[in-house]
Amino acid sequence: MSAHDIVIATEGDLRAAVPLDMAAVEVTERAFRALTQPGVEMPPILSMHMADAGNGAGGEMDVKTAYLPGFDGFALKISTGFFGNAALGLPSLSGMITVLSAQTGRVQAALLDNGYLTDLRTAAAGAVAARALAPNRVEVITILGTGLQARLQARAALMVRPGARVLVWGRNPNKAAACAADIAAATGARAEAATIPAAAVAAAQLVITTTPSRAPILIADWLTPGTHVTAMGSDAPGKQELDPACLARADLYVPDRASQCATLGELRAALEAGTVTGTDWPELGQVLEGAARGRTAPDQITLCDLTGTGAQDTAIASHALAALRINGAGYTIPA
Amino acid sequence: MSAHDIVIATEGDLRAAVPLDMAAVEVTERAFRALTQPGVEMPPILSMHMADAGNGAGGEMDVKTAYLPGFDGFALKISTGFFGNAALGLPSLSGMITVLSAQTGRVQAALLDNGYLTDLRTAAAGAVAARALAPNRVEVITILGTGLQARLQARAALMVRPGARVLVWGRNPNKAAACAADIAAATGARAEAATIPAAAVAAAQLVITTTPSRAPILIADWLTPGTHVTAMGSDAPGKQELDPACLARADLYVPDRASQCATLGELRAALEAGTVTGTDWPELGQVLEGAARGRTAPDQITLCDLTGTGAQDTAIASHALAALRINGAGYTIPA
Repeated sequence: MSAHDIVIATEGDLRAAVPLDMAAVEVTERAFRALTQPGVEMPPILSMHMADAGNGAGGEMDVKTAYLPGFDGFALKISTGFFGNAALGLPSLSGMITVLSAQTGRVQAALLDNGYLTDLRTAAAGAVAARALAPNRVEVITILGTGLQARLQARAALMVRPGARVLVWGRNPNKAAACAADIAAATGARAEAATIPAAAVAAAQLVITTTPSRAPILIADWLTPGTHVTAMGSDAPGKQELDPACLARADLYVPDRASQCATLGELRAALEAGTVTGTDWPELGQVLEGAARGRTAPDQITLCDLTGTGAQDTAIASHALAALRINGAGYTIPA
Repeated sequence: MSAHDIVIATEGDLRAAVPLDMAAVEVTERAFRALTQPGVEMPPILSMHMADAGNGAGGEMDVKTAYLPGFDGFALKISTGFFGNAALGLPSLSGMITVLSAQTGRVQAALLDNGYLTDLRTAAAGAVAARALAPNRVEVITILGTGLQARLQARAALMVRPGARVLVWGRNPNKAAACAADIAAATGARAEAATIPAAAVAAAQLVITTTPSRAPILIADWLTPGTHVTAMGSDAPGKQELDPACLARADLYVPDRASQCATLGELRAALEAGTVTGTDWPELGQVLEGAARGRTAPDQITLCDLTGTGAQDTAIASHALAALRINGAGYTIPA
């Protein structure tokens, strides 16, 4: 392979070459750690809302990137959401990741993943947060939400807290039951639908919220000592899964990126509600690096706010490119 | 070709399929016109400076995009500049354009052009500006600068003002002579190097500045009635080709995008120098659409400030994709 060859991979290539496994978790953790290092660059997300697009149904594009010292490449990710796609029999979400050389700036790969790598790195970040912040002993993992991330987050959490039982709550009991069945089939864990979210949260030592909600679905009073909550659903202004009182009730609040969570994450609503003030919070990478304190006692309540970072995209894309090269997968184009 | 096929094209494919011709000029003009329409979206450029990249020599990435109503797709362009590449025998500038469907948001094409399409659309914009604003009768075209854009801008200008003689000035007389020889060979026009820039500018009815200069290379006093100037070199804070007095001396100043020129174009230095005030200037698209007045007399001095827009990228990428499909060029990947 010459220095200028470019790897092209489809969603199918990537699904085959890059599973949700501990290697994906480790490279994601490396990204969070790298975010604390000098020389890192992670510009604000470029967002474009296209009211006229999608035959008038509207469309959105988000572009994320990050340069992480120590990685051979840096990624630029395009994510689109087009709301008229369902009527065409297509998924609403799509996108791709371009990998560029950190040495030359030249394109190394076009990963035509349609959002698969985002799903993967988002789940992997849940595992990183749980490993760092959840109590060592987790008997019950409660998932709020019944979509793809509910399934992937449960799988990822079980990788770092194996042996736990999984409870799944969603507004639609049938979807919750189907999600629990899928999790059980994929992991071998005991998994069942829960009907009362307060009880399911109170029973858990690890709670993961995975919805696109715009109003609280997890109430602070439900939280019991010795619980870690990862809220990964909010990634845009207006989204919110947690009662703003959760942040005040937690012994430790950890954003993936404080500046980003203040506008896109649970921190936004809490700041607006006045339950907390300021944006000077220990970030996940600082906790991982030991530069900030994490959980210090089993009975603490900890809370991690994941909005999704360009750093994760750079990490998972670098990992995917390495896997493709090892497997000789995808297309290689002399360019 | 199914709805989900993705076209992959290399620089070679694109050079073969998409020449600098009137079709490229027309689609670029369409982009400027579209910029005046409701529903257009062109977010600020995403820029990332990586001090540690390129083995410590530093690297930069700019990302541009625009959604233009009436175009089937929208483009996202990555441009990189890595300053240690010369030592590796590679060009400093690189990049690619992704084309996404305006109907579904799905990726339609990855154009691995290494900056070729940017060169093309930049030259095409010069032709659009000259056709709209230069006097009808142009006997002398003067080019300041001796690089690739000097050559391309001369070719583009001759497409809309044929029959003119070309003068090329640069700080290095040998490079100016080589550039003039290349222009003559490519176009059949009479082209020669000029030694005194003041005289070359005074002799011309169309002046195009094409340098990465950070200090004025064109002085206002050199301008004579009946001249149009296109300044296309400045595209970043700190770059400047025109004496700030040029903007005040001109009867008409036309930015490609006023908000962008105020930070990246000649307008920035003029605002800082106080020779003009405000950012409410008629944009090129408004002049083309007849929504703002252009040149109204042959003896006026007009000035067009081109910083480069995501709209041009969307236009040239759409044009390139159509050309690739007609020619069956590039690779088509089912994705």
